[in-house]
Amino acid sequence: MPKIVDHVERRNELAWAACRAIVAKGIEQVTMRDVAAETGRSTGMVTYYFADKEALLTAALTTVTEACHRRIVSRAMQDPISIRELFSESLPLDKDRRLEWGVWLNYWAAIPTNQSLGSQQRQHYKSWHHILESALTRLEQEGKLRVGIDIPETTDFLMALVDGIGLRATLDPSGWPPGRQLAQLDRALTMVLAEVPTATASESPE
Amino acid sequence: MPKIVDHVERRNELAWAACRAIVAKGIEQVTMRDVAAETGRSTGMVTYYFADKEALLTAALTTVTEACHRRIVSRAMQDPISIRELFSESLPLDKDRRLEWGVWLNYWAAIPTNQSLGSQQRQHYKSWHHILESALTRLEQEGKLRVGIDIPETTDFLMALVDGIGLRATLDPSGWPPGRQLAQLDRALTMVLAEVPTATASESPE
Repeated sequence: MPKIVDHVERRNELAWAACRAIVAKGIEQVTMRDVAAETGRSTGMVTYYFADKEALLTAALTTVTEACHRRIVSRAMQDPISIRELFSESLPLDKDRRLEWGVWLNYWAAIPTNQSLGSQQRQHYKSWHHILESALTRLEQEGKLRVGIDIPETTDFLMALVDGIGLRATLDPSGWPPGRQLAQLDRALTMVLAEVPTATASESPE
Repeated sequence: MPKIVDHVERRNELAWAACRAIVAKGIEQVTMRDVAAETGRSTGMVTYYFADKEALLTAALTTVTEACHRRIVSRAMQDPISIRELFSESLPLDKDRRLEWGVWLNYWAAIPTNQSLGSQQRQHYKSWHHILESALTRLEQEGKLRVGIDIPETTDFLMALVDGIGLRATLDPSGWPPGRQLAQLDRALTMVLAEVPTATASESPE
């Protein structure tokens, strides 16, 4: 192993390789060897970074979650905030996000029998909720939301809708292209926004 | 094996045992032996009814799907139709439906790498959509829906929401009791119904 190496970067590379291997083989069946093969590295290198499969799975879930949250935080910090971009960051609209969704589906199946993954997943939803609720609160203060909306409940509602749309699109990618996903998101946003966006099919409705 | 036996009933018993075993062990790891143990029968009996694991998995998915569709069809045939009961039939509100959801989660993870399961799942959504769209069309003809609603799109919207709520409730059962699930469903139904139900927290809002 070379002495000078960007450990963070390599760990990240292996975690993304683990994501691809999980989607291809399933979370139960994937092996350290599969992850090595996926990224063209040795199995020894994978075990150097991840002591066992549990550590690898946790790293994969954390990597996907952090990538997703980073994008959403960046949307939430924009001024003005686009509520559509904020929520559509979580939809499987492109190749990278379809990979994320493939990973989620695998983790969800494993959660009922794996307490540690379950608590990580709940923490993920908590963080996601927090970022979105803060953004909606700011939009409300700017007078951009309908009067009298319950912000925490509306946040949960929109999160559930995004999960439902993303699920369908992941199970049936050709039946649910980005336009169809966004049209359903827009349907909910018209309930939430003070003024209905005029260009419902465009990229930037606000 | 006794000569007189209700084959349909026994096949059904084994398919439900397969569902419980899938949720407990995961779809990849579950074995014919696990299914036999789950229902207190011999492995020989399981293989008598299901030639291989693929046949067993298909039977489990079909059994869950048919049970769910039977309930929804029965709701759709009621007069008057309760739109809330129609959609909440698919939510994990009790032990039986939580089992169904555990099965869905396992199949979803397997679909990206199993074409046959994928086409079964798309067929399931198609049937579910068909039943719900017919019911919404009848409600529209009775003047019970808001004027100008796009019925097929609204059906997809409500299906996505139900999937998203059910997913959260399955991943976090104690955080998402029935009341919280139904409150989020009601939030969407107020967009759809001509008259907002007066008792939003009761069992029969219509």
